[in-house]
Amino acid sequence: MTTGSPPQDTGRRRRRTAERGGGSGAPHPVGQPESPFAPLELVSRDELESIHQAALAVLKEIGIDFLHDEARTMLKGAGADVDSASRRVRFEPALVEAHIGLAPQAFRLHGRNSARDLSIGGRHVAFGTVASAPNSFDRAGGRRPGNRRDYQNFIRLGQSFDSIHFIGGYPVEPIDIPASIRHLDALFDMLTLSDKPVHAYSLGRERNLDAIEMVRIARGLDDETLEREPSLFTVINSSSPLRLDTPMLEGIIQMARRNQVVVMTPFTLAGAMAPVTLAGALAQQHAEALAGLVMTQVARPGAPFVYGGFTSNVDMKSGSPAFGTPEYVKASFGTGQLARHVGLPWRSSNATSSNIADGQAVYESQMSLWGALLGGCNLLIHGAGWLEGGLCASYEKFIIDVEMLQMFAEIFQPLITNAAEIGLDAISEVPPGGHFFSTAHTMQRYKSAFYSPLVSDWRNYGQWLEDGALTVTQRANRVWRDTLERYTAPQRDPAVREALTSFVERRKAEGGAAPVS
Amino acid sequence: MTTGSPPQDTGRRRRRTAERGGGSGAPHPVGQPESPFAPLELVSRDELESIHQAALAVLKEIGIDFLHDEARTMLKGAGADVDSASRRVRFEPALVEAHIGLAPQAFRLHGRNSARDLSIGGRHVAFGTVASAPNSFDRAGGRRPGNRRDYQNFIRLGQSFDSIHFIGGYPVEPIDIPASIRHLDALFDMLTLSDKPVHAYSLGRERNLDAIEMVRIARGLDDETLEREPSLFTVINSSSPLRLDTPMLEGIIQMARRNQVVVMTPFTLAGAMAPVTLAGALAQQHAEALAGLVMTQVARPGAPFVYGGFTSNVDMKSGSPAFGTPEYVKASFGTGQLARHVGLPWRSSNATSSNIADGQAVYESQMSLWGALLGGCNLLIHGAGWLEGGLCASYEKFIIDVEMLQMFAEIFQPLITNAAEIGLDAISEVPPGGHFFSTAHTMQRYKSAFYSPLVSDWRNYGQWLEDGALTVTQRANRVWRDTLERYTAPQRDPAVREALTSFVERRKAEGGAAPVS
Repeated sequence: MTTGSPPQDTGRRRRRTAERGGGSGAPHPVGQPESPFAPLELVSRDELESIHQAALAVLKEIGIDFLHDEARTMLKGAGADVDSASRRVRFEPALVEAHIGLAPQAFRLHGRNSARDLSIGGRHVAFGTVASAPNSFDRAGGRRPGNRRDYQNFIRLGQSFDSIHFIGGYPVEPIDIPASIRHLDALFDMLTLSDKPVHAYSLGRERNLDAIEMVRIARGLDDETLEREPSLFTVINSSSPLRLDTPMLEGIIQMARRNQVVVMTPFTLAGAMAPVTLAGALAQQHAEALAGLVMTQVARPGAPFVYGGFTSNVDMKSGSPAFGTPEYVKASFGTGQLARHVGLPWRSSNATSSNIADGQAVYESQMSLWGALLGGCNLLIHGAGWLEGGLCASYEKFIIDVEMLQMFAEIFQPLITNAAEIGLDAISEVPPGGHFFSTAHTMQRYKSAFYSPLVSDWRNYGQWLEDGALTVTQRANRVWRDTLERYTAPQRDPAVREALTSFVERRKAEGGAAPVS
Repeated sequence: MTTGSPPQDTGRRRRRTAERGGGSGAPHPVGQPESPFAPLELVSRDELESIHQAALAVLKEIGIDFLHDEARTMLKGAGADVDSASRRVRFEPALVEAHIGLAPQAFRLHGRNSARDLSIGGRHVAFGTVASAPNSFDRAGGRRPGNRRDYQNFIRLGQSFDSIHFIGGYPVEPIDIPASIRHLDALFDMLTLSDKPVHAYSLGRERNLDAIEMVRIARGLDDETLEREPSLFTVINSSSPLRLDTPMLEGIIQMARRNQVVVMTPFTLAGAMAPVTLAGALAQQHAEALAGLVMTQVARPGAPFVYGGFTSNVDMKSGSPAFGTPEYVKASFGTGQLARHVGLPWRSSNATSSNIADGQAVYESQMSLWGALLGGCNLLIHGAGWLEGGLCASYEKFIIDVEMLQMFAEIFQPLITNAAEIGLDAISEVPPGGHFFSTAHTMQRYKSAFYSPLVSDWRNYGQWLEDGALTVTQRANRVWRDTLERYTAPQRDPAVREALTSFVERRKAEGGAAPVS
């Protein structure tokens, strides 16, 4: 079923290619980027330890509300202090520490095509599409509620670019599909329009189990192999402060039991759902993440777990969340340190509050990206297309984000400094004040020497004016349209498609899934 | 003459203020940012040494053309191998090494107001305005050739924002002032509309000497004190590859003799004026920078010198220079390492090739800024307002850049992790699922807890739409207009102004300066 091509994340140097899934042909690194840089450190080891200790104190003295009977029973069995009346669970530090280290520091996340397999951990990073936006936007069609057509288009875009490594959820919510069967149609689209690793929402046990089964069918595996090979992930948000709701706990339990990936992401907005200080918000985030870790490892010791962070701040005037702020960047660096402190891969995001794909969207996104990528992020959710603090998936922003992600992948390519590269011969060949255009050193290398952009325009003012004086957002409109026109679906075994179709039909006939409790 | 307030760069924590020079009132850090992060390293120590050795080989075996008789005589006297016929100068590695270490690792650059004094070196960074653009642009007035009115406006903007620390040259060239007297009027404007440190162009001996004299008058100093207190800087560009032209060498000699600051900046575009490889372009840049260093230290041992880098790449299709590219970022990191390798402060830039203040301008600028600021840059020229690869000074881009610079200054503020900041009390006070808006911990801190933006709009889509659905570039137009309306000139001693005026009048009566040879 899979193409059998080797995983691309085994070496530090990656091949270049003149082909790209979409956009104009241009050389750029393919495969998963691996940072050559030591992750940036925001706080000292002692300061980090003080945040870690504060989180342990929160778990011991205050505790977390677990709104799930079975979860509390499981935690009680593991030695936690459970108050059934209040549903509060408290954890001794030793209990928490005993579960740190059970989850793998790094693991492989499998795609339906093994060439799409991802290394999650170490200095590798994987980029995903925007996820969960209720609206979508493009310059021609304007802003509209999520629908299946846009949903499918964003998956096609995600499939088309080598620098998008996974589908991070529903890029936009296809609300024209009834809620009871939405997960079936949506996963069917995801698993047929793309062959990259996917996400499943934790919205009740049936949906989790349906998703696991559909991915198993799509990969053509038996249950045992699926359990050895994590092939989908779910994002678990705590209801900060200090609460885990029923569907989220159900998601942890079902996914962990099958050895699939739990990405625990507290949404700790400083000043709203967390203390107004970054140190306080990080301590609370850490407590909530560790509570999720313990729950996961109690469900199945060794189940893959990713430490997620989404600590940012609110605008204290309006109460609106803000993203890509200086506080967001610092929280990212701190979160990376906390994740490494407990030996876990780290999930971050490419976020902005801007309502349109303008300069603000770009500087907030770049701030988010540098915070993530120099901070040592392993799993970047919402990598391309996010606008409006997550309320909109933008086609043009998607293209601009892909450009930025490709640039980061190129920055991560090591610099070669051997004698041939330095080229003293070329320097001695060109007279002072001359130029290097026609030296042998240049001629041998110029085709692949530099990153070639997707949507940037480097022409001079006159040429740019003559061509319509388009902004990058206007040009991005052309690029996504061209990309969709050139989209080709991944090759699939017809039998797999048929098996997926019949599963979806059977589950629809059964009425789909119950509303989320 | 000066206000007497203390320099603001002595401590790591800086006070916050609710005042700002321009824009809406909002707390943000003032004074000079100091990075809490270790500079990012692109190459290993061995790789760095191999680039350094390649540069020494270039200087020994190929040499540099010095188009200035006195300069060659001075270098010959210092032991360099001078070929008078070809004007080529070659340097033994020992000669170069003997001049490394003579220039200070860090120094103070003085403003006319001592509160504007800058620390150049260590982990301090200073941000300057755009410089040397032949055109300017704003949304209402469009693109036009440089003129004195725009020139003055950009200086007023530079004076108005605390996050702009120096005037980096003529923000836009005032071509409506005749060339022979342009430097006199332009420096007069700079020294009266702003009290921040300034730049002087090296366009012939008379202009350098006039600039030094005008700064001396503006600071109200005698010659000896001016020589103890560097108060202006000049950017020296080599005519890459491997040539230093007459006015540039004159600038080095005159400025260094008076102990003013030489910022040596080879413009080594890989594939055009330098090898197509980054390693080769960096080696050539390093050779040219070291040649300038030796010249400076021969002119006056210990004279302040800044190692500048502007290595980027060209678009191999059009030959156009590109900025803020992945190659540019990597060259920045490498240049920072090379500068530190020879114990010198490092100058970088905030560059973009975009023709308009759109998303491309922002992502290229952010790439440039992160390359500079995480790479350990000390002097950031073209910090605000640069467009079109330097051919245009944009009012709207200026505001967007100031927003980004302010954000970096905030990111550089250390995170406090003591118990009071973490606030376990607040965490225990708020019930699970509740909010922190009204806790004492929040109430005590919310006013100054977060960076407050200059031009970002964090409101939701509906509010933003109702207010006209403006892009950040449109909002920036309002901000710079408001800032200019609120501009107040720095306080000055009337006698100083009068002395400057009479100097300018006398030099004009003498005919100003001769055309550049």
